[in-house]
Amino acid sequence: IEKFFAKLREIAKQIEKTAKDDPRRLIHSLKVGVALTLVSLFYYCQPLYRSFGVSSMWAVMTVVVVFEFSVGATLGKGLNRGMATLVAGGLGIGAHYLAMVAGKTCEPILIGLFVFLQAVASTFIRFFPKVKARYDYGMLIFILTFCLVAISGLRSDEIIEIARKRVLTILVGALTCVVVSVFIYPVWAGEDLHLLVAQHLDKLGHFLEGFGERCLRTIEESDNLVGLNTVLDSKSREEILANFARWEPGHGKFMYRHPWKQYLKIASLTRQCASRVDSLNAYLNSKSHAPKEIQGIISSMSRESGKALRELSLAVETMTRPSPYPNCHVSSLKAASKNLNSLLKSELWGEHANLLQVIPVAAV
Amino acid sequence: IEKFFAKLREIAKQIEKTAKDDPRRLIHSLKVGVALTLVSLFYYCQPLYRSFGVSSMWAVMTVVVVFEFSVGATLGKGLNRGMATLVAGGLGIGAHYLAMVAGKTCEPILIGLFVFLQAVASTFIRFFPKVKARYDYGMLIFILTFCLVAISGLRSDEIIEIARKRVLTILVGALTCVVVSVFIYPVWAGEDLHLLVAQHLDKLGHFLEGFGERCLRTIEESDNLVGLNTVLDSKSREEILANFARWEPGHGKFMYRHPWKQYLKIASLTRQCASRVDSLNAYLNSKSHAPKEIQGIISSMSRESGKALRELSLAVETMTRPSPYPNCHVSSLKAASKNLNSLLKSELWGEHANLLQVIPVAAV
Repeated sequence: IEKFFAKLREIAKQIEKTAKDDPRRLIHSLKVGVALTLVSLFYYCQPLYRSFGVSSMWAVMTVVVVFEFSVGATLGKGLNRGMATLVAGGLGIGAHYLAMVAGKTCEPILIGLFVFLQAVASTFIRFFPKVKARYDYGMLIFILTFCLVAISGLRSDEIIEIARKRVLTILVGALTCVVVSVFIYPVWAGEDLHLLVAQHLDKLGHFLEGFGERCLRTIEESDNLVGLNTVLDSKSREEILANFARWEPGHGKFMYRHPWKQYLKIASLTRQCASRVDSLNAYLNSKSHAPKEIQGIISSMSRESGKALRELSLAVETMTRPSPYPNCHVSSLKAASKNLNSLLKSELWGEHANLLQVIPVAAV
Repeated sequence: IEKFFAKLREIAKQIEKTAKDDPRRLIHSLKVGVALTLVSLFYYCQPLYRSFGVSSMWAVMTVVVVFEFSVGATLGKGLNRGMATLVAGGLGIGAHYLAMVAGKTCEPILIGLFVFLQAVASTFIRFFPKVKARYDYGMLIFILTFCLVAISGLRSDEIIEIARKRVLTILVGALTCVVVSVFIYPVWAGEDLHLLVAQHLDKLGHFLEGFGERCLRTIEESDNLVGLNTVLDSKSREEILANFARWEPGHGKFMYRHPWKQYLKIASLTRQCASRVDSLNAYLNSKSHAPKEIQGIISSMSRESGKALRELSLAVETMTRPSPYPNCHVSSLKAASKNLNSLLKSELWGEHANLLQVIPVAAV
């Protein structure tokens, strides 16, 4: 029983940690609860249930499957589901009538053939990179709806009535999700991406500043290294967020057609820069020390670039043009770099050239 | 109409490319078609349909949703779905009886409360990192099934009969998927991971060899750079594959409990090494040339490490202990590195230290 309580305490800790890491998670859970309760009104209200019957189930199913953490993801899934259901439903009914014309014996064979061909084609299309990125879920629902509608036609004569009810309930479900996710404490993927990019620039700057000081003294400090690794491994997360952000309508300070691709570019440059810094760091850790003179230059250079990066991060976060201030850091960097270059065919070049690349993109 | 044909040709090209990149995609599409056709026998056979009725739909749905590209993914989803349906179905029926005991007026209120609380709790649990990695789909199905069973109880008296039919059809659907995906040209995620890791080591080695030659002459060659970037950005793909591989039973040369985590370690070291090499490469491109003497050493070093890495890659691929051959490369590397180190507080150190790290892990 001791063990049981220990386990329980562990779980409680986990819950606390998950909620503290991002309080919006708790709100999201409550939102799902609200949306589900709203949709289950289909079952509670006698008149609603009388007109929709068992099809009400599809509204519940849609809410559970479509409701995602961010507005963009929910909208994307909702639109995918809605469109795919409509198109596949229409095609399914078409296939049903086509098979009916062929006569009683041919009907099951034709339907089987249609289903098989459609499944093969659609599954294959899902491998196209563009389709996979944005319409994967839609294709899944397309296969599902087409099969269900076409096959059900074999066993039921009210196929149009069934299709109508399903489409309606699915639309209601999808709409509920979208409304709840947009109007109750919305979580915008675009905003997350925006902050993430700024944060990573800031982390990198912070690390470089710390690095500059560690160059001179020898302090062991691996806290920042974790931050650096987060930056290095952020690619897939950023791409997912940008993908969601593209579904989101303009809101607040994010106008319609916000340049999400530019964000990805900045992020990718940040990652490249982080990889350079990582190499530099490994060099420092290898304890094969360069002459004092060079060390001093590297140290001041990395401190300067760290400051410039943090300025940039602030500029991105507040969406202002970078002040002339970081540019002054950069020019002092250039001077220092030339200096160093003549001293030692510098390994900082790569990093520095990179920094220069970051600037114009950020200014866009 | 010209445009239309151009578009058509483009699509045809896309199809050809997708199929050529990985011919298993075509086979996978056919497999999905077969599984769907098998499952739709529920509708074609009179006796089967008589006993399952509308519930047959769930078999079709399960196949569409559960069937994934690799065996591991399919098994993972199938097990998740099966278990979640059983547990949630049981709990849903329990909730239904509990609410019934409370009396006619309280019943809808209690059910609504249960559904709300369950949805909030389960959605929150989905944020736990461990749950998210392996049981995300199971939790989704859990919420779905619980809601459907509990709410349906309000409107139908045959709740147990409905639940029994659904569980059976879902199990049949999941089983069909697993059987088809395991016995017809299986795609093992573990094997993919294995090859991917070996391939990346090889790419890195190839790049280093090319790099060694480019050090002396100045050939522009960016083909290999693409390969390097693939290695750098492979983290999420490897993690997904390892996650799927963990669901797979032992088969062929992959025994039960194959050390997938070790693969991830090698992969991560490979990535670190690639990042070092990338920095080196940027240094070369910056055109600030080191003295001839150092260039020669760097060039021969990178050629040697390239060879060592390709040997390692072969060893991983064929699952043999690395021959003493790469070790001899390494010792000559060590000598060269010391040499260089005394000449110039070497920037190759980082990379070299890393290579040494790769060796023991690969030997495991």
